[in-house]
Amino acid sequence: MYQLYIANKNYSSWSLRPWVLLRELGIGFKEQIVPFSEGSNWDAFRGFSPTGKVPALTDGDITVWDSLGIVEYLAERHDGVWPGNPQARAWARCAAAEMHSGFGVLRERCTMNCGIRVQLEEMPAALKQDIDRIDELWQQGLERFGGPFLAGARFTAVDAFFAPVAFRAQTYGLKLSTAAQEYATRLLNLASMQQWHADALAESWREPGHEAEAKAAGILLQDLRTTIAVKK
Amino acid sequence: MYQLYIANKNYSSWSLRPWVLLRELGIGFKEQIVPFSEGSNWDAFRGFSPTGKVPALTDGDITVWDSLGIVEYLAERHDGVWPGNPQARAWARCAAAEMHSGFGVLRERCTMNCGIRVQLEEMPAALKQDIDRIDELWQQGLERFGGPFLAGARFTAVDAFFAPVAFRAQTYGLKLSTAAQEYATRLLNLASMQQWHADALAESWREPGHEAEAKAAGILLQDLRTTIAVKK
Repeated sequence: MYQLYIANKNYSSWSLRPWVLLRELGIGFKEQIVPFSEGSNWDAFRGFSPTGKVPALTDGDITVWDSLGIVEYLAERHDGVWPGNPQARAWARCAAAEMHSGFGVLRERCTMNCGIRVQLEEMPAALKQDIDRIDELWQQGLERFGGPFLAGARFTAVDAFFAPVAFRAQTYGLKLSTAAQEYATRLLNLASMQQWHADALAESWREPGHEAEAKAAGILLQDLRTTIAVKK
Repeated sequence: MYQLYIANKNYSSWSLRPWVLLRELGIGFKEQIVPFSEGSNWDAFRGFSPTGKVPALTDGDITVWDSLGIVEYLAERHDGVWPGNPQARAWARCAAAEMHSGFGVLRERCTMNCGIRVQLEEMPAALKQDIDRIDELWQQGLERFGGPFLAGARFTAVDAFFAPVAFRAQTYGLKLSTAAQEYATRLLNLASMQQWHADALAESWREPGHEAEAKAAGILLQDLRTTIAVKK
């Protein structure tokens, strides 16, 4: 059985991608959570991940790493990872790859933190450009392939790649077009996403670096996390 | 016929990846060079690329974008993009994906600039960690799959993804292990890479942002570019 190594559900946007994909496709796996360290995760993560980063997936003796590397590994072994239609599949792969290497300003300024709600204090032009491009991409996919998911009727890997953006939109109250907001809400309402969110809220780990990043973005409105922070 | 939109060969590491792959696999394409603008490329690039970034590939009415999106599009249509052996293919995809989203410090501090030679003034720990990880990865691939390329006997997409690192190693004199240095030299000696380098040297465009980044890294030893900079 696959073992999927992930970090804190509250923070780890990269971990969420293969996790939600495996869950939505009904592919069995064992979840292995290793929380972030303060500072470098190299020592904590190198034992299971060659990059010292999450996620990593093991399949017997084979280790595959990087969220996109894992997705393509799964795509060779299971139906439905990418859309069946070749045009939708090409679009989905490009959009997922764009998310994989891009949107640096959104990732830095609106770091994933599922359990809090923050009012942004400013909207720099570069952040707005990232959000506008995601909005455009979502509208394009929904319109071109008919929805309700980005590349058609089924949840595929491109939805998994943008799932963390739905949590970011929720945490920071990002303004989206109606179609894009409805899509984000659709993702947030998936049973798998609801479980991820509930698990994130129940975590007692607080990593100071991630906490500081999220709170630097604006005014903390709410902290929904249900378990008190404990010193590791 | 495919049209591949790229930017300046001297600077554009992302452009190099699909270009060198297409050349090494002998897949025909028409090259469309659009040089970088000063500041944002959005206006110059949005006409052919939905992200406002290079590279982008058109295939009739279809536009695919992002270096990895393009590679997977080609992999569905041509043999040899990824290794035939499933284990080598999984490794190659993970390594290429790691390069696609990672090594930010190397990319920022040793920006690709084929035509100059720079002596680095310092080697911050984070830069050394990026270089060491690439060295480890290269050694692992060469050893595990028998070389002379990263995933075996043939040049595949994973080599294309690391081709810009060979130019960076040359420009900044990066210290690599013997096996990794031999591999970098092997890439630099490919006819396609030699042509890219010659074309880069012959470009007359100088983009101040890229020039400043490269020169901030250390002492300029040589500028091999053969054509005098001209104002656009």
